[in-house]
Order: sequence, then C-alpha cells, then structure tokens
Amino acid sequence: MADRLTIALDAMGGDDAPDMVIQGAAQASIRFPKARFLLFGDETLLKPLLEAESTLAERSEIRHTDKSISNTDKPSVALRTGKQSSMRLAIDAVKAGEADAIVSAGNTGALMAMAMFGLRTLPGISRPAICTMFPTMRGETCMLDLGGNVECDAENLVQFAVMGEVFARTVMGIECPTVGLLNVGVEELKGKEEVKQAAAALREISLPLDFTGFVEGNDIGQGTVDVVVTDGFTGNIALKAAEGTAKLVTSFLKEAFQSGVMAKLGYVLARHAMNKLRARVDPRRYNGAVFLGLNGIAVKSHGGTDALGFANAIGVAADMAVHGFVDKMRADIERINLDGT
Amino acid sequence: MADRLTIALDAMGGDDAPDMVIQGAAQASIRFPKARFLLFGDETLLKPLLEAESTLAERSEIRHTDKSISNTDKPSVALRTGKQSSMRLAIDAVKAGEADAIVSAGNTGALMAMAMFGLRTLPGISRPAICTMFPTMRGETCMLDLGGNVECDAENLVQFAVMGEVFARTVMGIECPTVGLLNVGVEELKGKEEVKQAAAALREISLPLDFTGFVEGNDIGQGTVDVVVTDGFTGNIALKAAEGTAKLVTSFLKEAFQSGVMAKLGYVLARHAMNKLRARVDPRRYNGAVFLGLNGIAVKSHGGTDALGFANAIGVAADMAVHGFVDKMRADIERINLDGT
Repeated sequence: MADRLTIALDAMGGDDAPDMVIQGAAQASIRFPKARFLLFGDETLLKPLLEAESTLAERSEIRHTDKSISNTDKPSVALRTGKQSSMRLAIDAVKAGEADAIVSAGNTGALMAMAMFGLRTLPGISRPAICTMFPTMRGETCMLDLGGNVECDAENLVQFAVMGEVFARTVMGIECPTVGLLNVGVEELKGKEEVKQAAAALREISLPLDFTGFVEGNDIGQGTVDVVVTDGFTGNIALKAAEGTAKLVTSFLKEAFQSGVMAKLGYVLARHAMNKLRARVDPRRYNGAVFLGLNGIAVKSHGGTDALGFANAIGVAADMAVHGFVDKMRADIERINLDGT
Repeated sequence: MADRLTIALDAMGGDDAPDMVIQGAAQASIRFPKARFLLFGDETLLKPLLEAESTLAERSEIRHTDKSISNTDKPSVALRTGKQSSMRLAIDAVKAGEADAIVSAGNTGALMAMAMFGLRTLPGISRPAICTMFPTMRGETCMLDLGGNVECDAENLVQFAVMGEVFARTVMGIECPTVGLLNVGVEELKGKEEVKQAAAALREISLPLDFTGFVEGNDIGQGTVDVVVTDGFTGNIALKAAEGTAKLVTSFLKEAFQSGVMAKLGYVLARHAMNKLRARVDPRRYNGAVFLGLNGIAVKSHGGTDALGFANAIGVAADMAVHGFVDKMRADIERINLDGT
C-alpha cells in the first residue's frame, strides 16, 4: 500500500447523508489505516458526527461548504451552478492533486458531468463509462457501461472493452481477463450493427486483450467472462434486472422458510449457512460504481446504501488509487493508439 | 373452453425432439381433454413414439414430412427452402384454419420469419413481438419484445404496449393491466429518444390503457407493472440476465445447504418448502414465448426444454386460442386506429 492515500468525500450526497457518509468513512478508516479523508460539506452538521468517530477524526479534515447537489438537479444545471457544492469541491480536490480519489453517493448524472468536466477524459477516450463488479458462479465479473452513455457506437464499445480489461487486471487482480460483448446471441450474424462492428474491431486489436466474442444475458451470472461490455442503456437495465431477481429469489426463500413448522425448524439449523448466502448476494458488498476513462478516480456509491455499503465504495476507490489505476490505463490506451475523436 | 381446439406441433424442433415433443403433447392432452393435435414430422420416428401414448394417439394425427429446420439455418434460407419442413407445414395448418395455434421448440429466427410470412401481421402492426410471462413479487408479469426486433422505434414500442396489454388482460386474466416502458430511470428526461417518444405517445393514447410511465430493470422482478415494454435487444438481455441470476442464487443456496452438518440437517427439514421454492422459479413453468401481432397464434418453446416445459408452452397456446386472443387484439388495435405503416 502506498504511503499516502487521500480520499475526498462528498459528505452531503446520499439518502442518509451526512450520517451514513461519516459512519462509512469511519469503517473504511479502520480498513485502510494509512488513508486520510477530506470531508466536503456543512461543518455544523459534520463536526459533531466526526467527533463521535475518533479514529476517523484523527485522519480527517472538514472542508466547509453549505451548498450541495440534490437528486433532482439536472446535470447541466449542477455543472453551471454547483461550483461551490460539496460534490464539485471534492472533485476539484482530485483535480488539484490534493486527493487520490473522490467518492459520492449523490446525484449520478451530476457526478458524471462534474467529474468529466473537472477531471477530463484520458487521451484517446471519447466518453467515460460506469463499471461495477458483481458475484458470479465463477467468482466476480465486472460490467460496463451501466448508464453513463445511453447511446453508444462501436468505437465507444471498443474503448469500454479496453478500460474494463485494465480494471479487471489492475483492480480485480485477474492476470489475463477475458472480455465479452453483450448481445442477443453468440452467433456472429446476430445483434445490433454497432455491436457487430465493435466485435470485428476487437478481433483485430493489437493489445493482448482476450476478446472471446459475444455473450448473452445469462452469461452475466454464469461468469463466462471477466469483463462484460455493453452500452449504458442495456447495461443499466441488465444489472438492475439481475439485482431485482436476486431480491425476488431471496424473498421467495424467506417465504419458503416461513411456510411451516418443519421449514422454520430447518431454517434455525441452516441459519448460519443462510447468513453466509445472504452476505454473498448482499448488494452493499458490491457497492461502488467506478467512472472509467477519466484523469482521476471517481466512484459513485448507491444513494440508498448504508455505512457498510459506503465503506465498500471507499474501498473500491482506495484499491484503484493504491494500484495506480489511472496511470496504468493511460499507458495501455497509448499502447493501442485508440483514436478517440 | 371451446368445443374444438386443434394445436399444430412442429414435432422435429428442439434439442430432444421428437421424443420430448410427443411426451410434452401427451402431458398437454391430459390437461386439455378437448384438444386435438396435428404432429408434423417424420412418420417413421413419430409413429412408435405416439403408439406409446394412447391418450394422445386417440386425438392426434401425424402429417408426414422428412424435412426439418436446423438450429443453424438462417431465417432467410429457412424461409426460401423450408417450404416442406415440419415447422412451415405446422404454420400453414394455422393459416389454412385447420389448427388454432402452432407450437415449436425449433430455430427462433426461422419460426419468426415463417410465422410472419405465413400468418402475416395484424392490420396496424408493423412488426410482431416476442412476449413471455415470469414470476414476480406480486404474481406474474409479461415482457415484450424479447428478441424479435433488435432495433425498435417509438411506434414499434407503442404497438408492443397495446399488444402486451391485450395479452395480460386476455390470457393472464388481469382486468386492467398496468403497462410500463423499460428505461434507465423513471424521470421523464432520462433515456433513449425513442423510449421518450413512445412514452409521450402512450400518455396520449385513446384506449383505456393504464400506462404508468417508465420502469427500471429492478421493477421486472418487483412486478411493479403487469406489462413491461422494451426493444428486443434490451428485453432479451434483461430476461436472460434475470434467468441467469435466479440460477446463480439457487446454486449459491444449494452450496449453502451443503456447507455443513447443521445446514444439511436444516435442508432435510425444509426440503418440502425448498421444493416449492424450486418449482416457483423453475423456468419450465414459464416456458412458451408468444409471437404477438400475427393473424394467428404461434408459440416458441425453449429449445432445451423437456416434456413438462413443452407441455406448458402448449398450454400457453391453448389458453390463447380458448380466449379468442387474436380476434380480441384485432378489435383493440382497430379501436385505437394505429397507423402501422
């Protein structure tokens, strides 16, 4: 771990902010004993919360602002009028080199717009993508884009593939990650034009990128590939459909255990195993969507998460910073000489 | 139930055809005692299989052909050269009024192309859509399109909404079905242009169609609406992502029950409840994707299903026929005067 690690936090973003943010940072401060935190937000609210968390308080600094971005603010408006907001100031701290990463549980669109404006995309990348990890039959897989770009052309998809591959290799620790393009069939002739064009380009690419071809929706949970590449419209819906189904099945499971005396008794005996199962599909465990393709590390936490989930999002940001993610990606993109116009 | 019900079966379609088809039809023949079956396929194979199923044999007729469509045939080739195939002859039986519905577990693209050519779309419908039901927190929901049309414009989506609403009302028995458009957020400003245009059109529509606005991927499993409308690319991926996740969670559950002596004992006690849970998320239970928008009933069974799954697909076809689905949809489409050019 690097000697110095500073995380900028938008302390005012999220349904239960700022309490959830401070408590999440407190958990993360134990997990990352060398990390420092810059907390952007309303000092009168933050100060008493921070005083209750002595480990965190020792390594934190409050940067006061009474402005914040609400969930209903349009990205364009946030960009224009939110220059003194907690979200924007936290991003600016990364831009200025004061912090290694920014984490926010606030308005996704505003965060994307501000991060793009403040941090700029890497040379060769036209648009950043949102990426997250999730559990599969084979371990963990990441998918992008998850909503940053509702319309994508073949070039965007190729760039997403490169960025996802670097993420899987650097942050997830997979030596030679496999990459698949999400489609409605695995045959070459099937699917949308841009997806077919991207596949053709990925087969040609000079980087040692292990592109395995098309994957289908069910391959997401199977863990068929390490990186699933798709446009932001499809990716957002696929991820939420998967999350919704996990919730549905666990709710059916709960009902089943309550359906009779024997089932209830069975639950008592299997409780420990069931708690492990619950932890395995707990969305908080995979909280922290990364904005890939920027000159800096920006992580979006789910707005409705709790302290544990927020601590995990901080963990993703810390891992990326520690692994020098942005420099590695910049180098890889230069190597394949993408013309991201 | 109508006095006369005849189902045409492509006996050669599916991974385990013709055995699976005959055994599935045998199960369906018990469930629908007034149904007759026309079995299209190779008589030398079908005859001995049928002789083993006396209830089915009494109400079945074999229509011999030694041609069939393979899973690797392109739809255009199947359409041109497959005129004597079991799939095509079964569709022709519906066209000629000899059968009320066709069910096939064969090549989806070929079935769609042949059904469109043979049965034609209803007046006012530009392109048919593939629709299926699945379990949710609130009961059952249906979604369309699931892969018939990878690119859709606003007009297609509006037509899908109308078709799905009639399906939910007529076949699923929901008095006033709610309809939602799948999007990346529920706010009016979010999402793709065609989705926003379709939403605007659906808000204006004269039919008493309960359009509730946008829904997100997690709403599929929640059962937020009775009918989820989307393009075929997104719908296919969302459905398969959901199916893959259900499989993932049940596989985690199985592992959890095997993780120790107490968990195993717990399983023994809760076994009955777990079997019910398994049945609830069993994909065979929801087998049978309907091609909506045609002048006739065509149902696609999953290619890898077994006899129980195929019997369920026949059940969907039979339900639609019994409820006079095509006539009801034609009437509703005329009422809203869609200009399906």
